[in-house]
Amino acid sequence: MTENHGVGGSIPPLGTISERNQSGGLTSTEIRGEAKVPDTVSDLPTPALILDRSRLERNAARMRSKVGTLGVTLRPHVKTSKSIDVLRILAGGAALPITVSTLAEARYFFAHGVSDILYAVGIAPGKLPEVADLIRAGCKLRVILDTLEAADAVRDFAAAEGVPIEALIEIDSDGHRAGVASDDPLLIEIGRTLGSNLAGVMTHAGASYDCRIRAEFEAMAEQERALTVEAAERLRAVGLPSPIVSVGSTPTLHYARGLAGVTEARAGVYAFGDLVQAELGTCAIDDIAIGVIASVIGHNRRHGRVLIDAGFLALSRDRGTADLPIDWGYGAVCDPVSGEIIAGVTVSSTNQEHGIITARSGEIDLDGFPLGSRVKILPNHACATAAAYDRYFVTAGGCQIVDVWPRVNGW
Amino acid sequence: MTENHGVGGSIPPLGTISERNQSGGLTSTEIRGEAKVPDTVSDLPTPALILDRSRLERNAARMRSKVGTLGVTLRPHVKTSKSIDVLRILAGGAALPITVSTLAEARYFFAHGVSDILYAVGIAPGKLPEVADLIRAGCKLRVILDTLEAADAVRDFAAAEGVPIEALIEIDSDGHRAGVASDDPLLIEIGRTLGSNLAGVMTHAGASYDCRIRAEFEAMAEQERALTVEAAERLRAVGLPSPIVSVGSTPTLHYARGLAGVTEARAGVYAFGDLVQAELGTCAIDDIAIGVIASVIGHNRRHGRVLIDAGFLALSRDRGTADLPIDWGYGAVCDPVSGEIIAGVTVSSTNQEHGIITARSGEIDLDGFPLGSRVKILPNHACATAAAYDRYFVTAGGCQIVDVWPRVNGW
Repeated sequence: MTENHGVGGSIPPLGTISERNQSGGLTSTEIRGEAKVPDTVSDLPTPALILDRSRLERNAARMRSKVGTLGVTLRPHVKTSKSIDVLRILAGGAALPITVSTLAEARYFFAHGVSDILYAVGIAPGKLPEVADLIRAGCKLRVILDTLEAADAVRDFAAAEGVPIEALIEIDSDGHRAGVASDDPLLIEIGRTLGSNLAGVMTHAGASYDCRIRAEFEAMAEQERALTVEAAERLRAVGLPSPIVSVGSTPTLHYARGLAGVTEARAGVYAFGDLVQAELGTCAIDDIAIGVIASVIGHNRRHGRVLIDAGFLALSRDRGTADLPIDWGYGAVCDPVSGEIIAGVTVSSTNQEHGIITARSGEIDLDGFPLGSRVKILPNHACATAAAYDRYFVTAGGCQIVDVWPRVNGW
Repeated sequence: MTENHGVGGSIPPLGTISERNQSGGLTSTEIRGEAKVPDTVSDLPTPALILDRSRLERNAARMRSKVGTLGVTLRPHVKTSKSIDVLRILAGGAALPITVSTLAEARYFFAHGVSDILYAVGIAPGKLPEVADLIRAGCKLRVILDTLEAADAVRDFAAAEGVPIEALIEIDSDGHRAGVASDDPLLIEIGRTLGSNLAGVMTHAGASYDCRIRAEFEAMAEQERALTVEAAERLRAVGLPSPIVSVGSTPTLHYARGLAGVTEARAGVYAFGDLVQAELGTCAIDDIAIGVIASVIGHNRRHGRVLIDAGFLALSRDRGTADLPIDWGYGAVCDPVSGEIIAGVTVSSTNQEHGIITARSGEIDLDGFPLGSRVKILPNHACATAAAYDRYFVTAGGCQIVDVWPRVNGW
């Protein structure tokens, strides 16, 4: 592998300084230079985002093992972590291609030596100049599209600029979001329009989040695989090469029994896990690697409420568990030291900087939440909660802060 | 007024460079230095947040007029805009005290010359050293609390450090969130514990958002006023001074018919307005001053969907209009040039970086949303949507970008 291809290098030892972030985000060095890094979870300013590196390593190893069994390449979606330090652990010392959700992520990860990047949000023609700049700089950045207009734009722009821009056609394998159905004649039209810019097909079976039992997940994983492979075969049947067949979501990848015909799999949230994933069975509660540390800032005795300084900006407004067997409100309340869930209470509502903890039923024991004490809140949706923060305070499973890792937010 | 008290100065002319942001946020100068500022809304990278300064000025003048009629001091809540440039317009050339939701806001606005600041989230004892640092630097920063434990902590910390920390007791005037009921004996106990650190009482009638008709809003405004004044009078009756009587929410302030006994009023979202406010009658749709500019990135023809590059990170997950007469989904879709709402469609769902526009009923006209074209999305909740961005692209009502203003996010 070349210096600039894939993640490269092994997991850095504790305290290793991240390289220069050339994309505008803070580096670990800059973050550490701002102020003394707190020693323990109890010293953190609140609200703060913590990341348990031990759990991350376990989640990473489990997915590498699963993908190895399936015989496909893992292309992690870095939209969850937006962190080169996290990606190094996902990669486990190897080089991995990645998936990004923004061009800000593409710039940041390319600046950190990752060069095989799929921008997995439909390309707007206005973004092609920025894509071309990255490709010219040596980044193997591919785009996706699902319209003839986008195929025209990519082909024409690539030709006019003399830049090889490769595109995957997005396949709608589940009726969930975007894409062309594999049996739609439009698929072939788009493929022909792209011509030599065509690199294959991709899908994301987001409908897997609506599955509830193993048989449904397995059927959805097979549907995702089969329809995407079918699309590639239909393109090949008319002489259009489709070397890349890319599928993935954390649930379908977790439950997939086979991925024949698929070349690569994408997943993101498996890195951290969250309450939704735990209810979908793709991780255990004990695998959830991030949490928000908050302080108790008040009590409303008459209404039996504990107020904390983590509201919807700190926890996100995601209510992904609302329709799942256990509704965790805005997150599961845990002891910040033991990590154990405090039974019978939930973050039942949020305002901008206020979270309200109440009992699921009956009276809450306010004495269990003294003013100034701390709680850890596990997120419904890791991607949404992490997005509120510009850094992770990293632990090795205990309460010591062993590192601070920056994130690249924005667009 | 002293140099360091209140906002000071008049509204800066177009293109004036903001002062140094000493709190870590970007300055306008730094933002402009990053890249050429786009000329028009059509040149913006997407997603991007735009701010119509003309509408902001109108909203600001309306609230100043209303508060003038009521005979109280306006203390704007800057959690909505987090911008000194916006505050200058809210102040209209005068000096205004402010309300903040984070100590990051307090540091930022103090660094920009605003020194009368109320931190309107219950104080955690762990934050008192930071509060004391600001007070020692000359900031008239007050805190709020609703427990004996917090009163003890403030009194003891202030005495030990020799710093005069003033606190307001938070009153629960509506059963909505935090606070002590005005008739609760705990109120007097907290007041006595605070002693010379007591500066008054405050409340936020967040339950005003559950009102639907004028009579309900007026009754809620009167309840907010009456219970808070009653709390102040109960403190005074036992010899505890309560010079500050602070109330406010955008709806109660809009509908208040009188504020006898109140000294100051707080409101935030009126600066920008949003779809929730429009449905509550506190602004018109045409008053909404911010919007998200997004690009069309794809079509799902089979399911009649337009995909845009603004998902829940760009629009927020706020669904504040879900229970209001008009459910705007994740925001109202507008023509980005005329600003007119495109009838019959809505952002019906979001993923992290995808928004899905569908017809409210029947088929959507995909040809009305060609690939690469742009839409403007009006927010359900201005505070939540603006929080996703580190800057405003400012217009003077048209499509020209006349300035770029930074925000101070985080904690």
